[in-house]
Amino acid sequence: MLYYGYFRSSASFRVRIAFGLKGLAPDFKSIHLRKGDQFAAAYTKYNPQEQVPTVVTDAGDVLVQSPAILEWLEETHPNPPLLPKDPIERARVRALAMVVGCDIHPIDNLRVLTYLQKVLQVSEGQFEDWFNHWIALGFRGLEGMLADHPKTGTYCHGETPTFADIYLVPQVFNSLRFKLPLAPYPNIKRIFDNCMKLPAFDKAHPKNQPDFEP
Amino acid sequence: MLYYGYFRSSASFRVRIAFGLKGLAPDFKSIHLRKGDQFAAAYTKYNPQEQVPTVVTDAGDVLVQSPAILEWLEETHPNPPLLPKDPIERARVRALAMVVGCDIHPIDNLRVLTYLQKVLQVSEGQFEDWFNHWIALGFRGLEGMLADHPKTGTYCHGETPTFADIYLVPQVFNSLRFKLPLAPYPNIKRIFDNCMKLPAFDKAHPKNQPDFEP
Repeated sequence: MLYYGYFRSSASFRVRIAFGLKGLAPDFKSIHLRKGDQFAAAYTKYNPQEQVPTVVTDAGDVLVQSPAILEWLEETHPNPPLLPKDPIERARVRALAMVVGCDIHPIDNLRVLTYLQKVLQVSEGQFEDWFNHWIALGFRGLEGMLADHPKTGTYCHGETPTFADIYLVPQVFNSLRFKLPLAPYPNIKRIFDNCMKLPAFDKAHPKNQPDFEP
Repeated sequence: MLYYGYFRSSASFRVRIAFGLKGLAPDFKSIHLRKGDQFAAAYTKYNPQEQVPTVVTDAGDVLVQSPAILEWLEETHPNPPLLPKDPIERARVRALAMVVGCDIHPIDNLRVLTYLQKVLQVSEGQFEDWFNHWIALGFRGLEGMLADHPKTGTYCHGETPTFADIYLVPQVFNSLRFKLPLAPYPNIKRIFDNCMKLPAFDKAHPKNQPDFEP
């Protein structure tokens, strides 16, 4: 198996964590987003969206979109499970994941921030306000969904990591890059710290990737 | 079963289509997003993100986030299936869905457009450019994933509707509201037209909701 990704991409980070938790170690090719590797025809034939990650299976099948890749991994490599068995609990885990995957990350990712700067030419203050506004709104919702819920445990849902943690950790990493204070989100902070003690999360961290740049 | 939604919300529209395809007819409560119903404490106890839709099951379980609700529906009401059986095909359907769910809709939804207008005070031209830029970028990727793929059929994947169509149709509806030309996306246009011939899609259309406003 082969995966195309970029050290700082949240979606690549998610997939790396899942690979690690499942005990998989696919080959890796770096797609340098700031240098524009994602626009090369040799890559867009796999990923017409010009995004990372892309996974190519041993059979040559091409998978894109991190939520779809994670569900595929769970279906084809079920152990250890990253979703609970009960449908209602699965829905909770997926909902927590999608708060990040649909409502925070897409609005604060590189291409949107670039548009704000280059096309709308927002000021530095407006830029920071934008970033912090969407993270704060999303984290407030996420913290509300975690706080006092009987299934919230060492991780977002229970005592083993799930999709929810796989989405949470890269988003917190991003927030820390922009120095967002985590004090208003004690559950998010606690769960992030718990996750980072696990080798699969640490190994997937951007700083530990072969294409890392400070 | 009960669902909270809003006639014009894409995420509510998705869930309505899925209910219809599964032959379900839950009760409905309108959350008027422009009047701020989503901020009322009676609602945020269910949905701390202050968004729609929310589903409350007959057992009293509360489900949020449309991707999680759709997966739950598929797991608990498997017929007719809205995902193929093969894991690689399931991944393709979910990826097509997530192009809309993660890469188009979150950047062009009401709260982001409101921020652009009220906080960043962009001009009318900048506002339209923003909306069209993200839709065009997403539709270009989606069209590339549909064109010439052997599994693309009457619908996004084969001859029966799937999650991919459930995401596609509300996004095309949104684009038509903003008069985006669909000529560059012949597969998207064709599949949208095919879907709208099905009663479940038509019945879920915003204009056919009890809270519809012109």
